[in-house]
Amino acid sequence: MGNFKGHALPGCLFLLIGFWWSVKFPLKYLCRKKKHASSLGSKTGFQRIELAEGIFKAVFSLIGMTAEQFVSSGPHLKLYDYETKQWHQLMNWQHATLYLFYCISGLVDIVAHSTNVLPVALDKMMLSLAVFAEGFLLYYHIHGRSMLDFHLHQLLIVAVFGAAFCIFLEVFFRGIVVLEMLRTSLCILQGSWLWQIAFVLYPPSGSPEWNQMDHNNTMFLTVCYCWHYAFAILIMAVNYTIVSWIVRSKIKQTPTMEIGLLKTSERDQESEDEM
Amino acid sequence: MGNFKGHALPGCLFLLIGFWWSVKFPLKYLCRKKKHASSLGSKTGFQRIELAEGIFKAVFSLIGMTAEQFVSSGPHLKLYDYETKQWHQLMNWQHATLYLFYCISGLVDIVAHSTNVLPVALDKMMLSLAVFAEGFLLYYHIHGRSMLDFHLHQLLIVAVFGAAFCIFLEVFFRGIVVLEMLRTSLCILQGSWLWQIAFVLYPPSGSPEWNQMDHNNTMFLTVCYCWHYAFAILIMAVNYTIVSWIVRSKIKQTPTMEIGLLKTSERDQESEDEM
Amino acid sequence: MGNFKGHALPGCLFLLIGFWWSVKFPLKYLCRKKKHASSLGSKTGFQRIELAEGIFKAVFSLIGMTAEQFVSSGPHLKLYDYETKQWHQLMNWQHATLYLFYCISGLVDIVAHSTNVLPVALDKMMLSLAVFAEGFLLYYHIHGRSMLDFHLHQLLIVAVFGAAFCIFLEVFFRGIVVLEMLRTSLCILQGSWLWQIAFVLYPPSGSPEWNQMDHNNTMFLTVCYCWHYAFAILIMAVNYTIVSWIVRSKIKQTPTMEIGLLKTSERDQESEDEM
Amino acid sequence: MGNFKGHALPGCLFLLIGFWWSVKFPLKYLCRKKKHASSLGSKTGFQRIELAEGIFKAVFSLIGMTAEQFVSSGPHLKLYDYETKQWHQLMNWQHATLYLFYCISGLVDIVAHSTNVLPVALDKMMLSLAVFAEGFLLYYHIHGRSMLDFHLHQLLIVAVFGAAFCIFLEVFFRGIVVLEMLRTSLCILQGSWLWQIAFVLYPPSGSPEWNQMDHNNTMFLTVCYCWHYAFAILIMAVNYTIVSWIVRSKIKQTPTMEIGLLKTSERDQESEDEM
Repeated sequence: MGNFKGHALPGCLFLLIGFWWSVKFPLKYLCRKKKHASSLGSKTGFQRIELAEGIFKAVFSLIGMTAEQFVSSGPHLKLYDYETKQWHQLMNWQHATLYLFYCISGLVDIVAHSTNVLPVALDKMMLSLAVFAEGFLLYYHIHGRSMLDFHLHQLLIVAVFGAAFCIFLEVFFRGIVVLEMLRTSLCILQGSWLWQIAFVLYPPSGSPEWNQMDHNNTMFLTVCYCWHYAFAILIMAVNYTIVSWIVRSKIKQTPTMEIGLLKTSERDQESEDEM
Repeated sequence: MGNFKGHALPGCLFLLIGFWWSVKFPLKYLCRKKKHASSLGSKTGFQRIELAEGIFKAVFSLIGMTAEQFVSSGPHLKLYDYETKQWHQLMNWQHATLYLFYCISGLVDIVAHSTNVLPVALDKMMLSLAVFAEGFLLYYHIHGRSMLDFHLHQLLIVAVFGAAFCIFLEVFFRGIVVLEMLRTSLCILQGSWLWQIAFVLYPPSGSPEWNQMDHNNTMFLTVCYCWHYAFAILIMAVNYTIVSWIVRSKIKQTPTMEIGLLKTSERDQESEDEM
Repeated sequence: MGNFKGHALPGCLFLLIGFWWSVKFPLKYLCRKKKHASSLGSKTGFQRIELAEGIFKAVFSLIGMTAEQFVSSGPHLKLYDYETKQWHQLMNWQHATLYLFYCISGLVDIVAHSTNVLPVALDKMMLSLAVFAEGFLLYYHIHGRSMLDFHLHQLLIVAVFGAAFCIFLEVFFRGIVVLEMLRTSLCILQGSWLWQIAFVLYPPSGSPEWNQMDHNNTMFLTVCYCWHYAFAILIMAVNYTIVSWIVRSKIKQTPTMEIGLLKTSERDQESEDEM
Repeated sequence: MGNFKGHALPGCLFLLIGFWWSVKFPLKYLCRKKKHASSLGSKTGFQRIELAEGIFKAVFSLIGMTAEQFVSSGPHLKLYDYETKQWHQLMNWQHATLYLFYCISGLVDIVAHSTNVLPVALDKMMLSLAVFAEGFLLYYHIHGRSMLDFHLHQLLIVAVFGAAFCIFLEVFFRGIVVLEMLRTSLCILQGSWLWQIAFVLYPPSGSPEWNQMDHNNTMFLTVCYCWHYAFAILIMAVNYTIVSWIVRSKIKQTPTMEIGLLKTSERDQESEDEM
């Protein structure tokens, strides 16, 4: 993964997920608030979305694991090289492990939202553990690098552990939109920051190298990190506005009769499921 | 900002805000407790105050951002100096970034308290993020300074992160006066400590320089930090007493009929808004 | 304890406990959910189980303490060696202390679940303190070791403190199955990791020594740690599935009449006891 | 305070307070549980006790502050020695500051429990801040000491910050006996550990000096710290048993008629006061 693509690709993925969440969570919140029960905003609808997210997560991480193993430079499931007496392609094994936890999280999502056997809060707990594992692997990944490289990855870890902590809180404070939006913003931050890392460490041909030892670069990147976060907030604000405008215009069109009763029973079921 | 004024000015600002909060929060608490519904203590009144605070925050940080950019020694929106191959005036960019987050926090306050589109708890979340960003920038700001300078800023960071944590807790425990007072005290502490930093690092002409390497100075300033906090508590106690006395004397004057019903409906609305 | 058996034996114990918990907690959760009141799933049944666990914990740690003192190489209650002017067998004293806290935790369990004198939440608090004490002793245990040894024990400490924190949360969020399962997974992780430590530091005769200074080994073991955790999750998933299948098949057999009333009164009593 | 008495005296104080709490909190809990409304266990009775505690705290810390200033070797309110160009007796100023915060905490207790102007939870918040300030001063106090001295004080700080965190939690989870007992145990631990420090650093004449550089001593003291905590738990268990026995025997004697109504109104008032 020590190249431009290796940082930019997962960056794209995180950006996409963050973007999707910045649409989904406001939608969910506004629909619940407006007691709007069309197929879009209904509880069953959102459960189906959660299920789809779980399947997406599981499938995508499976592909990721396979790719890490069987790319041309990959370990092809070989862990130890007996000839050189060295571990074989540890980097790829590390990334495959990382995907493994997201895969487990996806599977838990699928089971938790398609059956009622598992406690619902388990999906958040498993996601939190997956993000924590990512941060954990990253933390021991960056040992002994040059100053700028270390600093860049350290800032990434702040976002990752922040997200893990935020999702852990969601286990206890489920469905609070403020926490969900915090998580979304940290996810977007992670994605855009991976792009930043890619550009700094592997500058595209033509542009100059960054001086790894210049303290000014470190300081600039710290400020830059904050701008990335402000950018994440901007994306979320724009999406929130659009979603809010759509939900409002939809309500005016659809009649909202005979919903009250339906909603109550749904909420009862929900609060029953929660713990 | 490496001068006396650069520390004293924001110090004044934090002192003013802290002072204002040390009046506002006791007032809010005592009015709610006494179920006193004059224009001063009514819920709508406080919502208007929150709105005003948001506007103040947004406007003031916009001014701050502009000032940091366009003062005579500022970067004038120029980020990179191609001649010296150096980042241009990073300090000012850093401070402008700091103001940017407070500005966003102000805008969120305005939208959250003037419309009912946003979840109310978002104002606290955004303020917490702004304070956290301040602490974050400060943390990477103080790298490689002399011992006394480092220690002074480290103590400042304790107050800043403490405040960020406290406001984060307020997202979940909204409207608990004890947390609000803790936040207020940390805000005053931050303000008065900025003055202390100004006096120690840039002593006014005539007074002697501080020995940056003397461990005794470090120890004295630690004790001094505690005195600043005790001073913050004193200010709050005095203001609490005055506010409490005013509220009590006002209640004796105004009749408190027909309020019960009004209050109940207000509280219902409030608890509905909260999440 | 500086040998293979000294790490493998407690490893077995933790694995056994983790395995047992991975059966017990799903069972408890599913029974409560299905309102299944056979002798297996009733509240009194589970209270008896808690009592049995307490007795097991107390007895086993007493045996452990005695063993640590009176094995042939043990201190035989002698703390200070006046001849060599040295503390006598500090390692064994340390382990005995570790068992002491688990013993206290067992005693508290017994009293809390057999009488109603103690607050129920005290069992979790004491267990949390025992696990914390384990982590605390471990933390000061690993000072000044070689890189690989240090890293291995550091990862162990992550699991131990994680479990202590998780149990501490259970004091406030009692009976939430998600937290109980997190605790279980960390317990299994600790057990299997102790086996890993045993194999790495004291390789069985025939297999080669690990290079203590190779950074690659450190990196491999970090990844390996994640695999251990994935393995713990696998065990829990298998057990959950089996338990869920048994509970479901049992419900089909037994009639579930006249339970409602009984349950309600039980729950009332429970919520009364809790605080 | 760099002598035997300087550590043993506050040690006594903490031991006394811890002992008293280990009687008070079980008594409060058991009385509330048994709905026993004699003068001993009534809510007004306990409020009077809280008030007395506040007065005791305020008076005692005032005495402490005065003593630190005006003992023969004290600073006599002189902060800076212009002759030697040195801060004058910083140690005493530090301890006086420490007492100052306990004094403020005592004053807040008095006002919060004698009037109904202040929010009740403020007493815990202020106590938490006082304990935190103690840990904070201690933390910057131990800079640059020899290994054993540093280790001893570090362990003390663990107990102090643990207590501060525990009391902070009590702000939100008020009146939960498990937290109160945790706080009590940490208070006793702090007291007995201060005695340990006194004996190790200033051994009474006749006994040998401790080798400050021996790693074995450090390890022994870590184990010893755990024994101190086990001792604290023992004291609490004994006191809990005695209190529980007394409460039970008292209930048998006094009739418990017409209390129900009274209790309900009391509880209502309590829950109203709390926030």
